[in-house]
Amino acid sequence: MMRQVVLKARPQGNPRIGDFAVEEVPIPEPKPGEILLRGLWLSLDPYMRLGLDEKPMGGSNGVPLGAPLIGGVVSEIIASKADGFSPGEIVEGRTGWREYAAVSATLPGLRKIKRGKFSLTTALGSLGMPGQTAHAGMITVGRVKAGETVIMSGASGAVGSLAGQIGKILGARVVGIAGGPEKCAAVEALGFDACIDYKAPDFAKALAAAVPESAEIYFENVGGAVTRAALPLLKYGARVPVCGFMSLYALGDVGPGPDHLPGLMRMIMLKGLEIRGFSGAFVAAPNALAELESWLGEGRIKLLETVIEDIANAPAAFVGMFAGSADTGKRLVRLAADV
Amino acid sequence: MMRQVVLKARPQGNPRIGDFAVEEVPIPEPKPGEILLRGLWLSLDPYMRLGLDEKPMGGSNGVPLGAPLIGGVVSEIIASKADGFSPGEIVEGRTGWREYAAVSATLPGLRKIKRGKFSLTTALGSLGMPGQTAHAGMITVGRVKAGETVIMSGASGAVGSLAGQIGKILGARVVGIAGGPEKCAAVEALGFDACIDYKAPDFAKALAAAVPESAEIYFENVGGAVTRAALPLLKYGARVPVCGFMSLYALGDVGPGPDHLPGLMRMIMLKGLEIRGFSGAFVAAPNALAELESWLGEGRIKLLETVIEDIANAPAAFVGMFAGSADTGKRLVRLAADV
Repeated sequence: MMRQVVLKARPQGNPRIGDFAVEEVPIPEPKPGEILLRGLWLSLDPYMRLGLDEKPMGGSNGVPLGAPLIGGVVSEIIASKADGFSPGEIVEGRTGWREYAAVSATLPGLRKIKRGKFSLTTALGSLGMPGQTAHAGMITVGRVKAGETVIMSGASGAVGSLAGQIGKILGARVVGIAGGPEKCAAVEALGFDACIDYKAPDFAKALAAAVPESAEIYFENVGGAVTRAALPLLKYGARVPVCGFMSLYALGDVGPGPDHLPGLMRMIMLKGLEIRGFSGAFVAAPNALAELESWLGEGRIKLLETVIEDIANAPAAFVGMFAGSADTGKRLVRLAADV
Repeated sequence: MMRQVVLKARPQGNPRIGDFAVEEVPIPEPKPGEILLRGLWLSLDPYMRLGLDEKPMGGSNGVPLGAPLIGGVVSEIIASKADGFSPGEIVEGRTGWREYAAVSATLPGLRKIKRGKFSLTTALGSLGMPGQTAHAGMITVGRVKAGETVIMSGASGAVGSLAGQIGKILGARVVGIAGGPEKCAAVEALGFDACIDYKAPDFAKALAAAVPESAEIYFENVGGAVTRAALPLLKYGARVPVCGFMSLYALGDVGPGPDHLPGLMRMIMLKGLEIRGFSGAFVAAPNALAELESWLGEGRIKLLETVIEDIANAPAAFVGMFAGSADTGKRLVRLAADV
């Protein structure tokens, strides 16, 4: 038998623990063309909240009620009925919140990971979706240049902390924003020029003081009050890569909203802002992974990790991400006790 | 003596006729380095509303009370105290709402216009700011490609009508939006594939029906209800060049707004939208004017003109632009009876 986390109820707003259930089911048998995977590490990411809605956007479908949640996992192949895949090999793919999975070897996004040079968890962090997203946001979309100033929201999270370090490597001044003095200290320890606590009173004033010359890039990871404090500090022609919205995932498909546009759109026009939503996988440069690997090897990027033991604790950890838990960096669930 | 239009009161919201005054003043004498201009044609453009606020955005200053309004004018040089400028030559520049002006020959944006090939009014239309803005929005920012679908707001206005025609030249399907059946008929006569009347009931449904396959570009000229109807019709990764906001110029510097962000920002993220404010002069391609000139010469772009006789009628015509007047295309004030 194996355990998996399934969607019990569709969350209203932020997810709650009762929206999830841990169940025991038989370990599946691989069919022809499939591989049987033993999960080692499960990645917890804010974007997963989107898939918990029935219709996340337009016509797309969310996770069915009763089905395992979607999520990136590093696994070991333990049986293979697919050419080119052998037991003992390591793969990474969105194979879900479960201890074992039988999936098609042609599952979109599934890739082999080499053992040895880096920890396997990097396939879900610096050398995985967060790394590619940070690279795409900072380089492809943000087009950061030496001497520019970057305001980095969500600076203690996986994408934000990596994106800020990439900005530093490329010669920018990077001002982070995170929640609380401990997270800010961790962000500054990564080499950010400053980190402003959005939970402190006078946050907007402190941010403005840290960006005296205005900024060329605002990297959007959170939305809400942080966005409102950052946008007025941007220079004419600034870029705003829109990676995600911790504060907005739970909002549902509300459309542009009846009265939401005027102020922001006016600012877009008058400041010549370029605001661009992106998904790392779609727009990352072809050399993104190679570049991240070389920076990681040289010790120029670091990703803090918070490890959650046991799949049974995954729902609580996921819920905590939306409730401002103190964890920083990449949240990883250890699926196998021996890794 | 000469006449000029000055700002009498700062408009609250949309401009009203009482905000302006027509006064008689002496024709100025050019100082060394200056040229004396006799105005021929004055351009009326929505963006001029911005300069009527005390602080249009951030630190910039608007037109002082009692001073002539800013505006693009085609003029004849009638006296010159500047090297390289001779009486009889034609120039275009933002020399203001007045019959004569003495300006520095180094006024930013001032340029000589050749007589002969095209009407002098084209320097304020197809071969001036509106043409450059349309070119920049459609090509530099919008990156239109053959086979794509473009939704063009403000399609009967100067920029919108030109931008839509440029889209057609480059092989796109272009769906215009304008106010009323007469304007829509004029837009369709310019070669747009369709034009939807935003004043009609069921406007949003009609627009959706005209864009069955979703669109790659929404060209933003207006804001408000038109924007709300257009954004949901965009494809993943669509571009939104933000040229201007007829409905928002009068809004004042409201900032991004306390609750304005969530819906739009969520859509930007999930649809990977690229929303970019721009000013034609800053981002037009180096070959923009040459390309516009060749299209104009080949009869492939046309710009409808509405001529207002006499500078005394300029305030009423400007006020009408914000009140949904029936005029289409480029509004021009004839400053000299003999042109």
